[in-house]
Amino acid sequence: MHGDHQELRHQPVAAIRQAIRSGRYRSHTAGLGDGFLQANLVILPESVGLDFMRYCQRNPKPCPLVGVSDTGNPMMMTLGADIDIRTDVPAYNLYRRGRLEGSTTDICADWTDDMIAFALGCSFTFERALGEAGIPIWHVENNTTVPMYRSSIDTVPAGPFHGKMVVSMRAVDAARVDEVIDISRRFPLAHGAPVHVGDPAEIGIADIARPDWGDPAPVLPGQVTMFWACGVTPQVAIEAAGVPLCITHKPGHMLITDVPEDAEVPVLAPAD
Amino acid sequence: MHGDHQELRHQPVAAIRQAIRSGRYRSHTAGLGDGFLQANLVILPESVGLDFMRYCQRNPKPCPLVGVSDTGNPMMMTLGADIDIRTDVPAYNLYRRGRLEGSTTDICADWTDDMIAFALGCSFTFERALGEAGIPIWHVENNTTVPMYRSSIDTVPAGPFHGKMVVSMRAVDAARVDEVIDISRRFPLAHGAPVHVGDPAEIGIADIARPDWGDPAPVLPGQVTMFWACGVTPQVAIEAAGVPLCITHKPGHMLITDVPEDAEVPVLAPAD
Repeated sequence: MHGDHQELRHQPVAAIRQAIRSGRYRSHTAGLGDGFLQANLVILPESVGLDFMRYCQRNPKPCPLVGVSDTGNPMMMTLGADIDIRTDVPAYNLYRRGRLEGSTTDICADWTDDMIAFALGCSFTFERALGEAGIPIWHVENNTTVPMYRSSIDTVPAGPFHGKMVVSMRAVDAARVDEVIDISRRFPLAHGAPVHVGDPAEIGIADIARPDWGDPAPVLPGQVTMFWACGVTPQVAIEAAGVPLCITHKPGHMLITDVPEDAEVPVLAPAD
Repeated sequence: MHGDHQELRHQPVAAIRQAIRSGRYRSHTAGLGDGFLQANLVILPESVGLDFMRYCQRNPKPCPLVGVSDTGNPMMMTLGADIDIRTDVPAYNLYRRGRLEGSTTDICADWTDDMIAFALGCSFTFERALGEAGIPIWHVENNTTVPMYRSSIDTVPAGPFHGKMVVSMRAVDAARVDEVIDISRRFPLAHGAPVHVGDPAEIGIADIARPDWGDPAPVLPGQVTMFWACGVTPQVAIEAAGVPLCITHKPGHMLITDVPEDAEVPVLAPAD
């Protein structure tokens, strides 16, 4: 897969999605489609669609909604000219009643007329901006997954959706904390500014070395732990809601859109 | 009413809403509640709630969603500690099948268990920022209503909601156009950057002196016409959808929230 990744690295986004759609590429999307918005995916039945949209509206930092399909229509028309959500994500996870049933590389057989696809902004966007500002992030440099924790911060409930906020952690040199806050605040569709800076215990994290998801990352002398709202939060809320069927992207295997990362709004007019 | 307005001008927002709730104040809210977000109001039956939220998500510049009630619950819990949408707006318009039926100062008798209240950001926020930057806006200085026009710009449809974008116009000295763009872009929940700058004909406006809503405003020598997405747009889409019943605020008579204008997200935790 590494060779494929290298090959796709400087391809246009349409070519990358074509490689994914045809099954030629099935790996993670970090570093692909430079400059274009990538998104988390949540597919739910219409019966809980209104409550899920309310949950996202009320929790915009963990759940920044960037696109919503029509019910039963797999084309994400506001995120690109030709994005079929059934085939254009490298890998998917299927959950029944909140339990992971398995992973797959296309969901044509699973997609039904009552489904809605929701795309949510992800942290790749602000991590790239941090990189451009010369701020090293350990998990990016070391090609591991960002450490994530179940915090004690409550989300605002909506219908059956509720739960604690999941946060991701990046350790930053004390001198650059303010700069990192300013940079990430510029990306409200990629979780925005941190939700907490400093002592992990203040948001209910007992042991920073033992994340609930992802890989541990060291906190070096002189570094401050910074915590951002994380896109795993809606997954926890969906488990809590006991939704019969939910399909998500496989972590790290995101939807690559045609929307430039610096676009004012994540919407392409249908004719674009 | 003018005396009341003067008296409320420097009151805290909770006191202003109390004056509105009790019926003591029923006039416009421009200039009240300095520093706090004001919002347009749209109340619709749940049957079209999901499509309306999709319409807002797809058209974030005219329809920046800042709060959504639970179905049947009139408390706007994420916008303030004690906001009852049935009484806390100075005046409401009722529409049946898209036709204005009348105005009223409370909707307790009209609110039903299947209704959802949507709050949408409004231009007061960026107009205040322009004022602070020393950029005069004619309709503000002259206490008239901003001129609004039906443009030729299509909105992105969702379910029954569709139509052209309504735009508001502000004429600005040519030398300050870039500055005005930068300032308004900082307020994505208040329509953001302009959708068009320059010749009105390019967006289908035949006669700038004859707005479709609001009052005419002069374009002085050396000024450039600037156009922003306008909160009347959803009203046009709701008419097009033929929704049986819709309640809105009466233009200029907005909901004053507890959310600071410079908040990163328009959401107060329920306990705040």
